[in-house]
Amino acid sequence: VVPAVISLLTDFGDADYYVGAVKGTLARLAPGAAILDISHEVPPGNVTAGAFLLAAAAPAFPAGSVHLAVVDPGVGSERKILAARWRGSWLVAPDNGLLSGFFPEAEARSVERNDLFLSGPGATFHGRDRFAPVAGYLARGESWQELGPRLERPVVLSAPPPTRDARGLTGRVVHVDRFGNLVTDLPAGWLEDRPFVLEIAGHRAERLVGHFQQLGDGEAGILPGSLGTLEVVMNRESVAARWSLAAGATVRVFFR
Amino acid sequence: VVPAVISLLTDFGDADYYVGAVKGTLARLAPGAAILDISHEVPPGNVTAGAFLLAAAAPAFPAGSVHLAVVDPGVGSERKILAARWRGSWLVAPDNGLLSGFFPEAEARSVERNDLFLSGPGATFHGRDRFAPVAGYLARGESWQELGPRLERPVVLSAPPPTRDARGLTGRVVHVDRFGNLVTDLPAGWLEDRPFVLEIAGHRAERLVGHFQQLGDGEAGILPGSLGTLEVVMNRESVAARWSLAAGATVRVFFR
Amino acid sequence: VVPAVISLLTDFGDADYYVGAVKGTLARLAPGAAILDISHEVPPGNVTAGAFLLAAAAPAFPAGSVHLAVVDPGVGSERKILAARWRGSWLVAPDNGLLSGFFPEAEARSVERNDLFLSGPGATFHGRDRFAPVAGYLARGESWQELGPRLERPVVLSAPPPTRDARGLTGRVVHVDRFGNLVTDLPAGWLEDRPFVLEIAGHRAERLVGHFQQLGDGEAGILPGSLGTLEVVMNRESVAARWSLAAGATVRVFFR
Repeated sequence: VVPAVISLLTDFGDADYYVGAVKGTLARLAPGAAILDISHEVPPGNVTAGAFLLAAAAPAFPAGSVHLAVVDPGVGSERKILAARWRGSWLVAPDNGLLSGFFPEAEARSVERNDLFLSGPGATFHGRDRFAPVAGYLARGESWQELGPRLERPVVLSAPPPTRDARGLTGRVVHVDRFGNLVTDLPAGWLEDRPFVLEIAGHRAERLVGHFQQLGDGEAGILPGSLGTLEVVMNRESVAARWSLAAGATVRVFFR
Repeated sequence: VVPAVISLLTDFGDADYYVGAVKGTLARLAPGAAILDISHEVPPGNVTAGAFLLAAAAPAFPAGSVHLAVVDPGVGSERKILAARWRGSWLVAPDNGLLSGFFPEAEARSVERNDLFLSGPGATFHGRDRFAPVAGYLARGESWQELGPRLERPVVLSAPPPTRDARGLTGRVVHVDRFGNLVTDLPAGWLEDRPFVLEIAGHRAERLVGHFQQLGDGEAGILPGSLGTLEVVMNRESVAARWSLAAGATVRVFFR
Repeated sequence: VVPAVISLLTDFGDADYYVGAVKGTLARLAPGAAILDISHEVPPGNVTAGAFLLAAAAPAFPAGSVHLAVVDPGVGSERKILAARWRGSWLVAPDNGLLSGFFPEAEARSVERNDLFLSGPGATFHGRDRFAPVAGYLARGESWQELGPRLERPVVLSAPPPTRDARGLTGRVVHVDRFGNLVTDLPAGWLEDRPFVLEIAGHRAERLVGHFQQLGDGEAGILPGSLGTLEVVMNRESVAARWSLAAGATVRVFFR
C-alpha cells in the first residue's frame, strides 16, 4: 500500500516553528504519510496569493492526496474550517477564499468535529490544533462525510474574469513568478492568428514566442504559459522588475 | 511498521548544499526514515534562536522521533555531541545550549563513538559526518545507552526566568514570529482577572483578546499564545515592525 | 523494500508553485518514493551555482538515488535532456552544464522518449512535464538504457583548473557558503608543510586552522573544508562580507 500524500501550503514562513509543529502533528496523527511542502512563503495573510499557488500546484498530485492549506488571518474567529472533495483528492483550509480555484467543482463540508481538534494552548494556531488533525484524519482514510454538514456557499474570492471582444482581450496579472515573468489570466487560446500588441501599464510586447531564448536582450514577449494562460516574459531577465509591475496590473491585448 | 521520523533544525540555510548532504547521509544510514524539515533558517550561529524553535516544534512530533539539530559555531572544537532521551523521543545536537528547552527533563549522553562517525574531508561539517550518523543510528532503533556515558551537566543557556509579584509581571520577548507577533516568556495563566497595562520599550497594550480580529487597526493586544505564554500582537500588522522591537526586549505587566 | 530516494535541486524558489507541481508529479509517477529537497534557491538561471551544489550534495546520498536537477534557462529550446548513470545512482537534468561535476565519470544518455513526457500547457515547464516523468521512471526502477542514445559529449562548464608550482598555488573561489566562508577549488592536500600567505583581492590570510574557534576576532584563516578543498574563513563572521567577495575571485597561495 502506498502511503497517503499530504501537501502543505502556508504563510508560516521557513524560519519559524509553525511548519515543524504542523508536520510533527501530521506525522503523529497520520503515521507513514508522505508530507510534501508546496510552499510556506505565501506573504503573511495573503489569501489571494495562497489561492493562486494551491490551484496551480494541486493538479499535479495523485488522486487521494490531502492538500492542507493555511493562510488564515481570521484564525480564532467564527470563520469555518473547510474539508473539500475535489477529483478524488481532499482539501483542508479555512473558509476564507483560499480554495477559490477549486469551486464550484469541489464539494465542501464545514468541519464540525470538536472531538478531532487538539486542545493546544491558545486559540491562534489552528494549523497545528485543527487543520492538521483534520488532514491527518483524511490521510488515514477516514470518512469525509462525517466531518460535518455540506457547505453550499464556501467563500470564493471575487475576481473580474478576463474578457474578449472583436478588438481584443482584457485581463490581469495574477502572479509574478520567481523569474519575474508576469502570469496573466488570459487563456492562451484566446490569442488569434493575427497581429496584436499587448499593453501593461504603458509597456508593450508584440511578439509571441514558444520559449525564452527566442527573445533578444531586453525584449518582452508573450508566451503560452505552464498554466494555460498567457505570460509576459523576458529572456534571463525579470520583466516585472524592468517594468516595476506586481500582481493586479491590468493587461490589454489589441488585435490589429 | 511505520518508518522512523527524523526532524531537522539547522542554521545551514535553504540555499546551500549542507542540508542536502545531511539528508543524503540520513537516507543512506537510516533507509526509509521520514525526513521532515523544521527549519534551516536559524540565523547563522544563533543557538538561542535555534533552541527556542526546537523546543516549540518538538512536542508535536510522535514518540520515537529523532530530532537532529545543528547550530554549531564551535564545530571542530572540544564541545561534546549530545544524544538525549526525552519523552520517548531522541535529540541529537552539539552540547552548546541548543537543547536548553529539554533539560532537566531529558537525559543526556555524550556521544563517544568514533566508529559511527564518517571521515568526510575537513573537520567542520559535523552535521554530515557526526550528527547525521548518530541520528541515523537512533532512527534504526539502535541502543542509546551505548552511545556514550551519561552527561550530568549539559550546557544550558541561562535566561532570567519571568517573575511575578502583587503589582505585576516581568518577562522578556523570547521570539518574534513570522507575523511580527512578540512571543513572551510570561505564562498566560499569570494574567489575573483585573485590569492591567503591558509595557514594552515605552509602548503599551491593555486589551486581552482571544484572536487577532478582535483588534482595531493599529491597536496592540495581548493574546494567550500557542506556546502557553502571552503574546503581544496586532491584527494583520507586525507589532515588532511598528514598535521596532526584537527578541530580548523586557516586558512588564502592571496590575491596576 | 526501501522506497526510492529522489533528490531535488532547482532554481524555482521556495515561494512559487513550481516545486509543488514537480513534487506532485513525482508522487503520482513514482508512488512511495522519498522526495528530499536539496535546495530550490539556486539563483535564477545560474547553472554554475547549481552545478556546484549538486556535485557537493549528491555523494552523500545512497546508491540508487535519483537526483533531479533543473536550472534551465534554455527550457523549450533544442537543448537535450540528460539521464546519467553515476556510481549506481541517476542524474536527470538539462544538458547545459548542470551535471559538470559528474563527467567524465558519469555516463550520459539523451532522453528521447516523447511517450514519457506530459503534455502540460505551454512549453516552458519541463520540470513538471519532462524532467519529473523521467525521474519518476528511473525511481520506479525502469531501464535507463531505453531512455535514449548515449551522449558522448554532454555540455560541461569550462573552468580553469587550479594550478601549482614550486612557488605556490593559484585557484578560485567557487562558492560562498551561508556563513560567508570562501570555498576554493584548491585541494587541501596541496598546502605544503611550510609557511605561506594566501591572497584574495588584496586581502591576506596566513594561518592554517582546523576549526573556526582557533581564530581571533576578525582574523581570517585557511581551513581544510568539507569538500576537500581549502576554505578562507573567519570565526562567527562572514569573510565574504568583510572583504566584499563573491564566487569567481582569484586565490593565490605563496610559499615562503
